[in-house]
Amino acid sequence: MVKKQSPLRIIPLGGLDGIGKNMTAFEYQDDMVLVDAGLMFPDDEQPGVDLILPDYTYVLENEEKLRGIIITHGHEDHTGALPYLLMDLGRKVPVYSSKLTLGIIEGKLAEHKINSPKFREVKNGSHLNLGAFSIDFFSMTHSIPAALGVYMRTPAGSVLHTGDFKLDQTPIDGVTPNYQAINRFATQGIDLLLSDSTNATRPGFTPSESAVGPQLRHIIKNAPGRVIVASFSSHIHRLQQVCDASVAVGRKVVVTGRSMVTNTKIARELGYLKISDNDIVDAYDIGDIPDDKIVVLCTGSQGEPMSALARMANGDHKSLTITADDTVIISATPVPGNEKSVQSIINALSKIGCQIFDKSNTLVHVSGHGSQEELKLMLAMTKPRYFMPVHGEAVHLRAHAKLAESMGMKPSHIFVADNGDTLEMRGGKVSWGKPVDSGVVYVDGLSVTDANPVVFRDRQKLASDGIVTCVVTVQLRSKRVGDVEVACRGVSFADDDQLLSEAQASVKDKIAAGVKQDGANLDQLRKTARNSLSNFLWNKTHTRPMVIPVVMEV
Amino acid sequence: MVKKQSPLRIIPLGGLDGIGKNMTAFEYQDDMVLVDAGLMFPDDEQPGVDLILPDYTYVLENEEKLRGIIITHGHEDHTGALPYLLMDLGRKVPVYSSKLTLGIIEGKLAEHKINSPKFREVKNGSHLNLGAFSIDFFSMTHSIPAALGVYMRTPAGSVLHTGDFKLDQTPIDGVTPNYQAINRFATQGIDLLLSDSTNATRPGFTPSESAVGPQLRHIIKNAPGRVIVASFSSHIHRLQQVCDASVAVGRKVVVTGRSMVTNTKIARELGYLKISDNDIVDAYDIGDIPDDKIVVLCTGSQGEPMSALARMANGDHKSLTITADDTVIISATPVPGNEKSVQSIINALSKIGCQIFDKSNTLVHVSGHGSQEELKLMLAMTKPRYFMPVHGEAVHLRAHAKLAESMGMKPSHIFVADNGDTLEMRGGKVSWGKPVDSGVVYVDGLSVTDANPVVFRDRQKLASDGIVTCVVTVQLRSKRVGDVEVACRGVSFADDDQLLSEAQASVKDKIAAGVKQDGANLDQLRKTARNSLSNFLWNKTHTRPMVIPVVMEV
Repeated sequence: MVKKQSPLRIIPLGGLDGIGKNMTAFEYQDDMVLVDAGLMFPDDEQPGVDLILPDYTYVLENEEKLRGIIITHGHEDHTGALPYLLMDLGRKVPVYSSKLTLGIIEGKLAEHKINSPKFREVKNGSHLNLGAFSIDFFSMTHSIPAALGVYMRTPAGSVLHTGDFKLDQTPIDGVTPNYQAINRFATQGIDLLLSDSTNATRPGFTPSESAVGPQLRHIIKNAPGRVIVASFSSHIHRLQQVCDASVAVGRKVVVTGRSMVTNTKIARELGYLKISDNDIVDAYDIGDIPDDKIVVLCTGSQGEPMSALARMANGDHKSLTITADDTVIISATPVPGNEKSVQSIINALSKIGCQIFDKSNTLVHVSGHGSQEELKLMLAMTKPRYFMPVHGEAVHLRAHAKLAESMGMKPSHIFVADNGDTLEMRGGKVSWGKPVDSGVVYVDGLSVTDANPVVFRDRQKLASDGIVTCVVTVQLRSKRVGDVEVACRGVSFADDDQLLSEAQASVKDKIAAGVKQDGANLDQLRKTARNSLSNFLWNKTHTRPMVIPVVMEV
Repeated sequence: MVKKQSPLRIIPLGGLDGIGKNMTAFEYQDDMVLVDAGLMFPDDEQPGVDLILPDYTYVLENEEKLRGIIITHGHEDHTGALPYLLMDLGRKVPVYSSKLTLGIIEGKLAEHKINSPKFREVKNGSHLNLGAFSIDFFSMTHSIPAALGVYMRTPAGSVLHTGDFKLDQTPIDGVTPNYQAINRFATQGIDLLLSDSTNATRPGFTPSESAVGPQLRHIIKNAPGRVIVASFSSHIHRLQQVCDASVAVGRKVVVTGRSMVTNTKIARELGYLKISDNDIVDAYDIGDIPDDKIVVLCTGSQGEPMSALARMANGDHKSLTITADDTVIISATPVPGNEKSVQSIINALSKIGCQIFDKSNTLVHVSGHGSQEELKLMLAMTKPRYFMPVHGEAVHLRAHAKLAESMGMKPSHIFVADNGDTLEMRGGKVSWGKPVDSGVVYVDGLSVTDANPVVFRDRQKLASDGIVTCVVTVQLRSKRVGDVEVACRGVSFADDDQLLSEAQASVKDKIAAGVKQDGANLDQLRKTARNSLSNFLWNKTHTRPMVIPVVMEV
């Protein structure tokens, strides 16, 4: 009875400051369950970083409580931090997810040399007790098969976490959202709803995935030559539709691009992607199959310069080159930040002269996230007492909150949180809790570290202005200056030997004067070198490259 | 009669590889006329560059022929190269344009200390003879007032250049495109049409600028507090509509942001923007005007971090700070590449809690470029014998070409060109000519130079991997190694003193071994230093920063 008043703590460690690195901890007394462990990809603000992870220090500090990690689906913004987290944990914590999701994760863990993880397969209808948590899983529809939502009951109250979802009544595999389960949980009582906010600013209903099929089939059927389809390699239902359309019109499917090959292999092995061996052809075995009997399924829908699509467009692909007779379908949408790369591959394809179909002219892509009407329907079905919008940028979370308000929910029952904010639930009532440490860590090579703003500032400065190093040797006692060497990278005057030798002479003069001053020391001379070189370059070029001065006594 | 067969040469020097740096030369015998002299803004592919200009060497090489420079309208992608070109030309060449355009250019030239340029004002209906060129100007509608199209006749044939345009039947100033002139030129005969391709992939008609007014007025009228409108500072008609709506509902207009202040000033002085002094208030003089009587017109619609909007959102503006009671209208669309910056200001505003209206939820912006139906209408009215789509990326030029084909134009009469390709017209017949040198030059501080791919590659490498310099002193004769200094910037191990001293020791060992070898020389030792440091860092950190080795003999 001692801990009777213990709250359920809801601790979002990622996912509330953008689309990415989703991770939420649920803690009740000595038990903790983690939902998702995702990564985020860096943008211009984090130059040179490989990956961004949520700072999960809180989980590590409480790792003896951690009963399990639930992964809702196989996208990297929900799975990508898992290898790092599992390596950081001192013991094997079980990972619960659907067969496909575990299959995808297994491959990623193997790349990190993590073998025999403690995988526990769950599915729609699975029930699980993890310490004080009584957990039910239910099917949701999304842009990857086998996505699950989670309903958790604890002595302090209950939570429903939608995972990523759209409400698709005609999904490709026939597995609709489990409305019966959701409504049964609602009847039992949902104290807090956590719901996907990605498309909270979009009015209406997101079209069904099956709306794309007829368009794909129409294009593939009528194309005079090869058809090249670029899409997300994890979007198995999209790939299924491409395969179905191809087989239906008597074309063979060629798969190319690393992640496309990997994911189609896993999905076929696990029974999520259905196409007979006979209908799949290796890129090297096309032989004399006529062009109008071929569909190429490839990576590159985000304009990635090293992707199969880009290589086929630029003539760098080992066995395929796109020509004017081909038809290219970009069956995807640019992830924010990728708009220019996608536009640039479209321009490259335009120059080749092939036919191009994309979202702008044909319905060859639909979103995997529900729009406003679906989000409202979810709120109406779940009838939560409290609501926390998750999975979105600031604007999405707030738009989602407004939707809830428009349905009559009290603003005081809606919690728009930042990562690290916590909620506490007692007897089904939710209030703000004490924030925990949160933030991001950057993966850069082997280094997994906190944000170091100086590194990014330096990198941005280096990228915009370049660098000049200047090495001077001096003898302080004899007040003599030796050689001066100036080297530079990333500056527009890199080849201007005259300018550089003038710069050298100018630094030498200044150091020669400096070394003669009473009490001259290396620190002072280093500043003299930096300032004199920086001023010289500003006067001559109106640029301010970073200057690294090295003054050595010999 | 000697030069009877001389062609009219059409020489696009910019504008055919993206939206920007528009510049086309027209050359007949000893006469040349230039249409537009624009710049392009750099993106991630050109880190650290200030501006991009078309390479106009061809114009300089033939400058004795240059009779005049025509500027179709006042946007920077049509005017921004002018200061550089005028400085490079050995003599004063007259610049022909409308009053507003010249007013805007005058300010820009003054910034470059170019005074008393040879300006010649022209307007709708103006006729001009420049050497062999007989030139007529006609009004066009665009997202800046006083835009002009150009019709040129030469002994070799005639050309109509639309300039940038939409076909707006209800423009704010009542100045519709001069359809009568266009159709009269068509009757006289248009051998070649050069037409704006920006929106050639968009079906339908672009809505009229006046469609935006009622929305703006509705929002401004009903806003409970201040209204902040961010837009393009050159979009005088948009600004006029904001002013009109403000005055109509009894609000004062506050103008803030450097280019917004400059452009509204010029436009008011020249009579293009009409609002009484009484209705305009300085940002510092707001005093006790109630919030619901204020509209702020500001820069920042592209998410620029230093703009007035960003500063007002971040609390960095000198006199205004956006609060939850404010209403913000982003009356613009993100220029490609700016999507993420715009989204990030929208997220910042969302967190403040103010109301936000933008293109995604209200018609507060329309494009200044005509969509497919307008482009086809232009082709139908002009009935050109030949057609060259201009002003667009590869995909736009080709889409525009397809539109012309769909109207029955022969593919052989359509010229999709690259910058530097030329067309030749003889007796009104057009064929490909010999290409001229073309390309881009980069403005980086005072340096205006050709592309140096090494500089960009170095900058991208520096941005993604950082830099480590390593300085070693040696005595080749005595085979001794002195101090080793390692300095680094933009690397994640910058603060790891232990790693850096291990690196130092490792380089010293390798150099000590190297210096003992027969025939050891500085070049070899430099390579040794680079390789050993690079390998050491790869092994320890799995990163590959740029390494600058300096080995000095002392």
